[in-house]
Amino acid sequence: MAEYAKRLWLEEDLGDDYRWSYRVSAVLFSGRSEYQEVDLVDTPTWGKVLLLDGKMQSTEADEQVYHELLVHPPLLHHPNPKRVYIMGGGEGATAREVLRHRSVEEVVMVDIDKVVTDFCAEHLHRNTAAFKDPRLKLINDDARAQLEAAADASFDVIISDLADPLDGGPCYQLYTQEFYSKVVARKLAPGGIFIAQSGPAGFLSCREVFSAIHSTLRSVFPSVVPYAQHIPSFCDAWGYNLVFTDPQQVPLDAEALDARIEERISNLPLHFLDGQTLVGLRQLNKVVRKALAEETEIYTADNARFIHGAGVKAAAAN
Amino acid sequence: MAEYAKRLWLEEDLGDDYRWSYRVSAVLFSGRSEYQEVDLVDTPTWGKVLLLDGKMQSTEADEQVYHELLVHPPLLHHPNPKRVYIMGGGEGATAREVLRHRSVEEVVMVDIDKVVTDFCAEHLHRNTAAFKDPRLKLINDDARAQLEAAADASFDVIISDLADPLDGGPCYQLYTQEFYSKVVARKLAPGGIFIAQSGPAGFLSCREVFSAIHSTLRSVFPSVVPYAQHIPSFCDAWGYNLVFTDPQQVPLDAEALDARIEERISNLPLHFLDGQTLVGLRQLNKVVRKALAEETEIYTADNARFIHGAGVKAAAAN
Amino acid sequence: MAEYAKRLWLEEDLGDDYRWSYRVSAVLFSGRSEYQEVDLVDTPTWGKVLLLDGKMQSTEADEQVYHELLVHPPLLHHPNPKRVYIMGGGEGATAREVLRHRSVEEVVMVDIDKVVTDFCAEHLHRNTAAFKDPRLKLINDDARAQLEAAADASFDVIISDLADPLDGGPCYQLYTQEFYSKVVARKLAPGGIFIAQSGPAGFLSCREVFSAIHSTLRSVFPSVVPYAQHIPSFCDAWGYNLVFTDPQQVPLDAEALDARIEERISNLPLHFLDGQTLVGLRQLNKVVRKALAEETEIYTADNARFIHGAGVKAAAAN
Amino acid sequence: MAEYAKRLWLEEDLGDDYRWSYRVSAVLFSGRSEYQEVDLVDTPTWGKVLLLDGKMQSTEADEQVYHELLVHPPLLHHPNPKRVYIMGGGEGATAREVLRHRSVEEVVMVDIDKVVTDFCAEHLHRNTAAFKDPRLKLINDDARAQLEAAADASFDVIISDLADPLDGGPCYQLYTQEFYSKVVARKLAPGGIFIAQSGPAGFLSCREVFSAIHSTLRSVFPSVVPYAQHIPSFCDAWGYNLVFTDPQQVPLDAEALDARIEERISNLPLHFLDGQTLVGLRQLNKVVRKALAEETEIYTADNARFIHGAGVKAAAAN
Repeated sequence: MAEYAKRLWLEEDLGDDYRWSYRVSAVLFSGRSEYQEVDLVDTPTWGKVLLLDGKMQSTEADEQVYHELLVHPPLLHHPNPKRVYIMGGGEGATAREVLRHRSVEEVVMVDIDKVVTDFCAEHLHRNTAAFKDPRLKLINDDARAQLEAAADASFDVIISDLADPLDGGPCYQLYTQEFYSKVVARKLAPGGIFIAQSGPAGFLSCREVFSAIHSTLRSVFPSVVPYAQHIPSFCDAWGYNLVFTDPQQVPLDAEALDARIEERISNLPLHFLDGQTLVGLRQLNKVVRKALAEETEIYTADNARFIHGAGVKAAAAN
Repeated sequence: MAEYAKRLWLEEDLGDDYRWSYRVSAVLFSGRSEYQEVDLVDTPTWGKVLLLDGKMQSTEADEQVYHELLVHPPLLHHPNPKRVYIMGGGEGATAREVLRHRSVEEVVMVDIDKVVTDFCAEHLHRNTAAFKDPRLKLINDDARAQLEAAADASFDVIISDLADPLDGGPCYQLYTQEFYSKVVARKLAPGGIFIAQSGPAGFLSCREVFSAIHSTLRSVFPSVVPYAQHIPSFCDAWGYNLVFTDPQQVPLDAEALDARIEERISNLPLHFLDGQTLVGLRQLNKVVRKALAEETEIYTADNARFIHGAGVKAAAAN
Repeated sequence: MAEYAKRLWLEEDLGDDYRWSYRVSAVLFSGRSEYQEVDLVDTPTWGKVLLLDGKMQSTEADEQVYHELLVHPPLLHHPNPKRVYIMGGGEGATAREVLRHRSVEEVVMVDIDKVVTDFCAEHLHRNTAAFKDPRLKLINDDARAQLEAAADASFDVIISDLADPLDGGPCYQLYTQEFYSKVVARKLAPGGIFIAQSGPAGFLSCREVFSAIHSTLRSVFPSVVPYAQHIPSFCDAWGYNLVFTDPQQVPLDAEALDARIEERISNLPLHFLDGQTLVGLRQLNKVVRKALAEETEIYTADNARFIHGAGVKAAAAN
Repeated sequence: MAEYAKRLWLEEDLGDDYRWSYRVSAVLFSGRSEYQEVDLVDTPTWGKVLLLDGKMQSTEADEQVYHELLVHPPLLHHPNPKRVYIMGGGEGATAREVLRHRSVEEVVMVDIDKVVTDFCAEHLHRNTAAFKDPRLKLINDDARAQLEAAADASFDVIISDLADPLDGGPCYQLYTQEFYSKVVARKLAPGGIFIAQSGPAGFLSCREVFSAIHSTLRSVFPSVVPYAQHIPSFCDAWGYNLVFTDPQQVPLDAEALDARIEERISNLPLHFLDGQTLVGLRQLNKVVRKALAEETEIYTADNARFIHGAGVKAAAAN
């Protein structure tokens, strides 16, 4: 039970008629940017929790799992990843995991909000070293604009660590067919790999955005490997789509994955991921497989304007 | 959003400092037995929800998944399941799934609480037919006593659909080495299969009871196959342990499972389960595998008295 | 503590950033009209609670206090009240208290919502007899239209038991200078008395509507006597404005009030009100007196359109 | 609505099945003593709020009202108050109001918790000057022990600003007949006045402690004048008992009170209190008057042990 007396609860909606609350023992730091409010709170349930606009971004208890699953699959499948581009990821944990790969020479991380990246560099002690790593090039700007401005074939791996496309912000444009085909595909070097965190992927939630992100990627790239894992602080199974640009690439089996983990990553062991784990997560259940197979929607720059709450700013700017 | 005005929330603890709330549009029926309160409520999030003592037992939205994973794996792995014993399962959904197997000739379901079984037979429309099926023999009594009283080798499959061992009730005794070896093992016919719902099995929660149930079963039986799946209304991954009593038995591959589903089960398709699904779920992640490998605790009749809140009544009765 | 297990809470906002919750043991009855949702719930804190659109209307624990203070002061100050008009009051408790006055020959109660009045007549057992009293003439219509249609000088007492003027509904028009001067004043017989429930009247809340209702009434009538009492289920002090149309009328002292209570009211004693009580409540505290003295706003039919959320329908109808 | 994004709520029970929650915009300072946790939080509803063990102690929005009603009535009724003793009052606001009386030469304030008094001296800006006033003698010790140790007839006014007697702490002993007769009565100079904050005094709550404190005081002193006022942040009417030790003393009328306010108090005006206000509050309603008249319980040192949750430590110490 709580070691403190006050009943201070952070409440968050999980749906229209459904919410949860977890106790806060201390509000450690608070800040505000032109984009959002940033808070770091301590909780008995999750340890330290990073909040953006009052919504859980990551927790000490399980961010490691989310980030291992986002970062290591694309890098392990690449023969020799040297240059990595991170869209978003302001918290620093994505960069932290990327930098564990010894082959990596440069990580370009582009997050719009300098207040957030400064805040995390200072207060998230797990990520402090990553922010100081000389291989990290942190740019506070629009992730799309910076990627467009890069030379073609610049990156071995591109990682999309952005808010969901339907969250009402401008992120929608970074989930469209146009963006994938005209920007991502072009900026990846031959054999490049792309991965996108792809929203809730549970059997009740997989049709919200996960299936459409998957079908959009499949409309552009030759091979898309989806997988999902329950993340407790997201209160759902969470989906990823791993994209190969070279039709020769295939998912590695457990043994090959374990061998590459051993060879390439520093500060072993990994906490959550190994070959068997990833192989298991790629076996989606019947409901989710059916949703992916049946999905006909493709996110295009054009239909943004018809999607409630999404791409509004982008559409308005046309 | 809600189609009704009142902000009526059902609140439930998910941990000491962590809870959730979901809106209730109507309290459909309420009852009370000598053991517990029973309610059926309607909710916009989960559809109809069955509550025992105010705690979610099952929801229209996802009970199918929980019950398919509890029932079909043991029955599909048995060469020809005719007689099935259900411990608990008062809701009726476990029996419903068992009765879909054409080979089944008798289902003995023993649930202590007649008020609950009457309530569910009347109000849970999905399960009404199961309660009326002539192959179902419903007994309102102690599940252990009835099983002990049965002739040896009576059942092809025994299903444990009980409250968790540490919930403070008398269920602890039905998770012990003694019960498994002296009762379950003896009442199963040759080649018999046992399955136990085994509590939370997420990477943060698997050491609560899942790993100890697993290690207790392994101390008695030659082969125990664990698997887990995220169940949204349980707000966690949920664990099962499937037990073979014959060392020759091995888990079926996806193709064989699919073939048996096709041959044996009526009213196809299944909603959630197929061969690939179960094969995927058997690939536990690294954290859970490590927890199972490291677990040294075995639930015994004797140590009940040292486990906080568990087996208190049973221990006191000795 | 609760005698039931489920943690079912009714939540209501008390302000923008401030809310309360009380446990519900049972939802007794629910209904819905074209205007609103009606529920009767049972609670350990308040006994039975009537809800309109999920908002507490009255509770078994304290409705008696609210209604004694609304009804008896105007009737006791009138020399011989025979005909009474109630605007709103669908719950029936206002009529119930009026009908305790032996002098009363006719009560016209006009509440827009027949579903509510039927519901209360059936389910609020304290008020059932009032609904059946032959002296009660219940009309389900617009309270203003019916009053306008009545012959001039029809009523000895008019009681306004309506939602607050700023609640966003059409009630605003029944709090305006025009309504008071052109309708209420005209329909009252010589020596007639008017009373309006007048919203929150605490030292933090009295400037929300209480002071403006008071100043509006003072702009029309020769004598307005405000008083207030804390009503727990309203979570605030609650205000009333008692209006004399005859400048000769003066507030009675405690002794005179007690004498009239004794003479005129059946089923004594009153629960809450006596002479000393009312004399005390008329002594408003310094903050509230200052608010009333300083208030310059007068609700007019015209400025409805400038008041956020109020009179919207009425204004739109012009 | 909130100018900040996070939905951080402070939740407090108002009863067994009844609670409220108000949003917290910032946790300004937190501390912990051997007795309790101390927090200062900012809220949109109440302004700054002081919490002891997570319970609202006072709020910027209404502490002035509570403290004016606690301090000025006893001092105004005394002919020439020079020496004042405050039991509890660690927040500093009681001392602040006492020190506004020009006649006061010494205020002895005894609060057990140095962490609280240091915290409030530093963080509650309204009270900072009072803590620095040379007339204030602040002692961190047991309020009873210090009063017993004082010379007889030391004080003109004694103010009891303590937790309620049934809160489970050791305060019960400071509400007993023995304490009043053997300590308070003896330490007051001739014509001395005592006042006790006396807990909830609403028509639903006045029998919890208010009536028994009153009857205990009446069993010792010749004249006890009760009054009550709704305090929003206490979510109830709050009671006070003003005690005259000289049978000649009588409550002052409104005019006399106003005159003394004018003569004696610095930094006028008072925010809430004037003669008419206090005269009104002394007119208790019928339900509360009846409760006081019927109360037969008297708190004695002896019956502490039979009162649930009260005086446990004291009883155990015998």
